[in-house]
Amino acid sequence: MPRYKLTLEYHGGPFCGWQRQDNGASVQGVLEAALARLEPQAGPVIGAGRTDAGVHALGQVAHADLARDWPPERLAAALNHHLRPHPVAVLAAERAAPDFHARFSAVERRYLYRIRDRRAPLTLEKGLVWRCLRPLDADAMAEAAAHLVGRHDFTTFRAAQCQALSPVKTLDALSVTRAGDMVEVRARARSFLHNQVRSMVGTLAQVGAGRWPPEQVAQALAARDRAACGLVAPPDGLYLAAVRYPEAATDGGAGA
Amino acid sequence: MPRYKLTLEYHGGPFCGWQRQDNGASVQGVLEAALARLEPQAGPVIGAGRTDAGVHALGQVAHADLARDWPPERLAAALNHHLRPHPVAVLAAERAAPDFHARFSAVERRYLYRIRDRRAPLTLEKGLVWRCLRPLDADAMAEAAAHLVGRHDFTTFRAAQCQALSPVKTLDALSVTRAGDMVEVRARARSFLHNQVRSMVGTLAQVGAGRWPPEQVAQALAARDRAACGLVAPPDGLYLAAVRYPEAATDGGAGA
Repeated sequence: MPRYKLTLEYHGGPFCGWQRQDNGASVQGVLEAALARLEPQAGPVIGAGRTDAGVHALGQVAHADLARDWPPERLAAALNHHLRPHPVAVLAAERAAPDFHARFSAVERRYLYRIRDRRAPLTLEKGLVWRCLRPLDADAMAEAAAHLVGRHDFTTFRAAQCQALSPVKTLDALSVTRAGDMVEVRARARSFLHNQVRSMVGTLAQVGAGRWPPEQVAQALAARDRAACGLVAPPDGLYLAAVRYPEAATDGGAGA
Repeated sequence: MPRYKLTLEYHGGPFCGWQRQDNGASVQGVLEAALARLEPQAGPVIGAGRTDAGVHALGQVAHADLARDWPPERLAAALNHHLRPHPVAVLAAERAAPDFHARFSAVERRYLYRIRDRRAPLTLEKGLVWRCLRPLDADAMAEAAAHLVGRHDFTTFRAAQCQALSPVKTLDALSVTRAGDMVEVRARARSFLHNQVRSMVGTLAQVGAGRWPPEQVAQALAARDRAACGLVAPPDGLYLAAVRYPEAATDGGAGA
């Protein structure tokens, strides 16, 4: 059973999230259905990040085992054909090492969160960014973000239903930049707790809107108390941007 | 009747275009309906560019006359309220001089055309970019674009139904840039012929795909023959990006 690594882009809007569920379409579910059209006995599709309902991906990574030896380009094209009309696309397929695991082999995940601070409703980007009515001070947000970088107990920024064994994570980077009325937050870590990025972004937005001084984010972190979280930003603005693996994890392939 | 200048963003997908028509919703039509909710006797909404079906706007400009003296911010907010759920937003409203005319006072229009050259279907950007299956040589496209800049008879790049009195226009700039698998074409002129940008972009794409040498664009232009046009790019990737007026045309206002 050769193993394949798939790089995926999707619009999270119509899905109940990455993970297969009894109610509603999932990204994993439509991918497995597309794979089953190629090989009825195809195994499950395992993703690097279990994105929530409404969360998008620019570079989610998944793996799956197939019986046949598929030329990677043909596999990507065939999957894309069977994925229609769902807004899920295979950007690239590659043959992977037998022990490659999309979730457990990952050494870094990158998330992007996009905010527009403007009064006007969204049109072209509806469902694709978070609109904040109050103008945001991106510099203050960046100052607050610096308090979160490093190895910490992120209990404050963790969903109640988070299944991680430990709330201690190392956040490698958390940047805030502005271009026009778009504020972008970029987060980078080996792994994240459930809702961690949205909880951090929602809290940074409290700082940006002038409701919290930047130092209050340090206090909220130190409190290790979910109730100290500012707010949880909506899924619309969140993108799983990229997942990184050790160099040797895949043995070549082709873009789609 | 004070005159107002409105800066507009919209998603062209659900509309038959800017212009009011008997069949289907138009951007102008939903704006006039929203204005009528504020003032039943409100006049027509005149736009700077009559964008086609499916063409988007980042900064369309329109003017309208109202009976009441509206604070610009309140006017924008009230219009945005009544525009729901249409994907049309008033980004800014300003009081304009009585002789300000969105279409005839404009001294420059800027269009953006976005192309992704990739095999994978579009997900997040479906309807918002043109996907080209063949890889495009953006440098060759830029070389070809240079042949079109300047004052020319653009008959080759003009729709049959174009109502302009003359096919002679001055194209001030036509640039082609690449970032990743996104190729962006930017066009700038006082005014354009009907379908001119899409006709130029479709022709440049022939060059990008290696089907035409760059010089063939100069020959097509010189032919002054619609049949010499490469092809007309789809509306999905086209955005009316901005419209410029002489400095004194408006007398202040506020963003929305």
